[in-house]
Amino acid sequence: SNSVRIALLPGDGIGTEVTEAATFVLEKLARRHAIGIATETLDAGAFAYQRSGTAMSEETFERAKAADAILLGAMGWPGIRYEDGTEIAPQLDLRFRLGLYAGVRPIRAIPGVPLPLSDPRAKDIDLVILRESTEGLFYARGRGTVTDDAEARDTMLITRATTERLSRFAFRLAERRAARLGRPQRVTLVDKANVFTSMAFMRKVFLEIAAEFPGVPADAHYVDAMALDMIRKPWDFDVLPTENMFGDILSDLGAGLIGGMGYAPSADIGDTHAVFQPSHGTGPDIAGKGIANPTAAILSAALMLDWLAMRGVGQGFADAATEMEGAVDAAFAKGLRSAEFGGVGTKGVAEAIAEQIG
Amino acid sequence: SNSVRIALLPGDGIGTEVTEAATFVLEKLARRHAIGIATETLDAGAFAYQRSGTAMSEETFERAKAADAILLGAMGWPGIRYEDGTEIAPQLDLRFRLGLYAGVRPIRAIPGVPLPLSDPRAKDIDLVILRESTEGLFYARGRGTVTDDAEARDTMLITRATTERLSRFAFRLAERRAARLGRPQRVTLVDKANVFTSMAFMRKVFLEIAAEFPGVPADAHYVDAMALDMIRKPWDFDVLPTENMFGDILSDLGAGLIGGMGYAPSADIGDTHAVFQPSHGTGPDIAGKGIANPTAAILSAALMLDWLAMRGVGQGFADAATEMEGAVDAAFAKGLRSAEFGGVGTKGVAEAIAEQIG
Ligand SMILES: CC(C)[C@H](C(=O)O)[C@@H](O)C(=O)O
Ligand SMILES: CC(C)[C@H](C(=O)O)[C@@H](O)C(=O)O
Repeated sequence: SNSVRIALLPGDGIGTEVTEAATFVLEKLARRHAIGIATETLDAGAFAYQRSGTAMSEETFERAKAADAILLGAMGWPGIRYEDGTEIAPQLDLRFRLGLYAGVRPIRAIPGVPLPLSDPRAKDIDLVILRESTEGLFYARGRGTVTDDAEARDTMLITRATTERLSRFAFRLAERRAARLGRPQRVTLVDKANVFTSMAFMRKVFLEIAAEFPGVPADAHYVDAMALDMIRKPWDFDVLPTENMFGDILSDLGAGLIGGMGYAPSADIGDTHAVFQPSHGTGPDIAGKGIANPTAAILSAALMLDWLAMRGVGQGFADAATEMEGAVDAAFAKGLRSAEFGGVGTKGVAEAIAEQIG
Repeated sequence: SNSVRIALLPGDGIGTEVTEAATFVLEKLARRHAIGIATETLDAGAFAYQRSGTAMSEETFERAKAADAILLGAMGWPGIRYEDGTEIAPQLDLRFRLGLYAGVRPIRAIPGVPLPLSDPRAKDIDLVILRESTEGLFYARGRGTVTDDAEARDTMLITRATTERLSRFAFRLAERRAARLGRPQRVTLVDKANVFTSMAFMRKVFLEIAAEFPGVPADAHYVDAMALDMIRKPWDFDVLPTENMFGDILSDLGAGLIGGMGYAPSADIGDTHAVFQPSHGTGPDIAGKGIANPTAAILSAALMLDWLAMRGVGQGFADAATEMEGAVDAAFAKGLRSAEFGGVGTKGVAEAIAEQIG
């Protein structure tokens, strides 16, 4: 077919503002490439919890699951918490319940966006943190224990099955990137195999899968050394599969390197479902002001079009994805500045990007 | 008394080179401040393991424990591993066996050393990562399990007792720093309390202890947001207590911000013992070439003198510590360049620093 149904979960705070901007750009692309994108807006998040007592109802979950893809804004709000005191994060439930093990978090310097590192090679930063998103330390979510108000435990789980899937995903992504970028792409597992049994196991399984892809260079790096190298030479890395908690930390660090969370898209991908969302949160300090940077949301929508194209919905989606990313690059290269850098607000950024289309 | 006995554990690779440089500077300071520093060199590390079958013999451990302080180089070597495949890391055993819960990792921009961030405020970076060093995820070391080659688990432990001690250490450190620097110092717990039970517990205990120090501002920050903020505004933070694994990652990230591991000292401090060592490893790629940067080792020795002074061995140690840090700053401010930045080797750096003494 040439048309898809998207579940839109704007969520809370700037989540609603940036998804509006992303759908504005999406609509222009859809017209131009003659592809059908029907959206259904669904209510979930911290304010949904406050209103109804559930952060994401079963009905909402089922409708989201039935869609071809899910486009999410951001969820959570200070002061609104589950009864156990943890944050309202139905996006985590989606990752777990839909088996979205591959958390794709591209870290790419966009030409024209101010970068914090002074080294001129920073403009070449183009890597992907591949955050495993269904187990690792996050397996412990909702399972941790406190004993006698004296000690607390959380358990990290690494399974062979998920590590194999994540590793294969990493190597296939490297192959696709190598073809697209025209240069070899290395896959570097980020672990702490020198200290932890689970991480030594993860590395072992990763290296087994690496052997299935003799054409793709593979190695492994300790997470502490990687945090250092992301400052020293982030332009040297390509595809970085890693444990959930490590990926959470490294992807925010990476976002910092390319101008902040406003430029960091993400995709949580499983074998049959996927959620696309900017890496940032709900921005309580800037919500409602119209100044949130929608670039990450727009780039997340581009990841969605690309994924839909791979799922076979039609070449129009692949073309639209390419044009969307190109429009972002062109707009910033021509001098667009987002509000974090003293430039224009949400609408202004979305319009400047949309102008580059067609 | 006015004299101390130091156990010197140079370890492997550049560990021996940088400890030699540090003792060279220490000796000059000892003469000048008329303080007694007797050193006993002890054998431990990967090559000790290769030679003798133990990475650190019980006798070595006991002699190190009996000393007033332990000055360590670096340990571990590629290809030399324990039978279970993990890295030779007797420095971890020292932390666990001597109860060195407070891993003090100062991240301070030294005037004159090239910094990777272009923002001019980077020269004001002066924070301390306070890495809990006896539990957290590292509690799992040697305890992890693999089941049926299908899944592996490691458990993170947070205890009230250690969190209380770490938090008190953090607030006292903030008080000392406020007095020394002449400006208020904030204590910011770095956790992931929004997701993990153990981290919510850690935050709860931290906030209880914070109430004992009403004069010191305290807050908490999620670890992913902190990784971002260490790029965006590291100059805004002061004392950052955190879980062991988080501290491992953030302290290497921090080292990256001030010119690399060659500038990052550390102290692992317990209630009665302490180990001082540069944060870097054994540098297999540069070992034996005489180009390792000894600054981190020299700054670690300064932390040792300062800690010994606090333990009551005499004002001369406090003066020597102050002069040692001042000599490092003066040498680099006057144009000293270490080998990583195209400058002089281990000896050259040590001599340039020693020249600033007296
Ligand atoms: C909101 C939070 C629970 C979430 C996470 O830790 O996964 C966020 O930081 C993210 O990276 O998507
Ligand atoms: C060598 C390694 C086990 C060690 C650690 O992880 O603690 C090192 O990275 C450190 O930071 O001291």
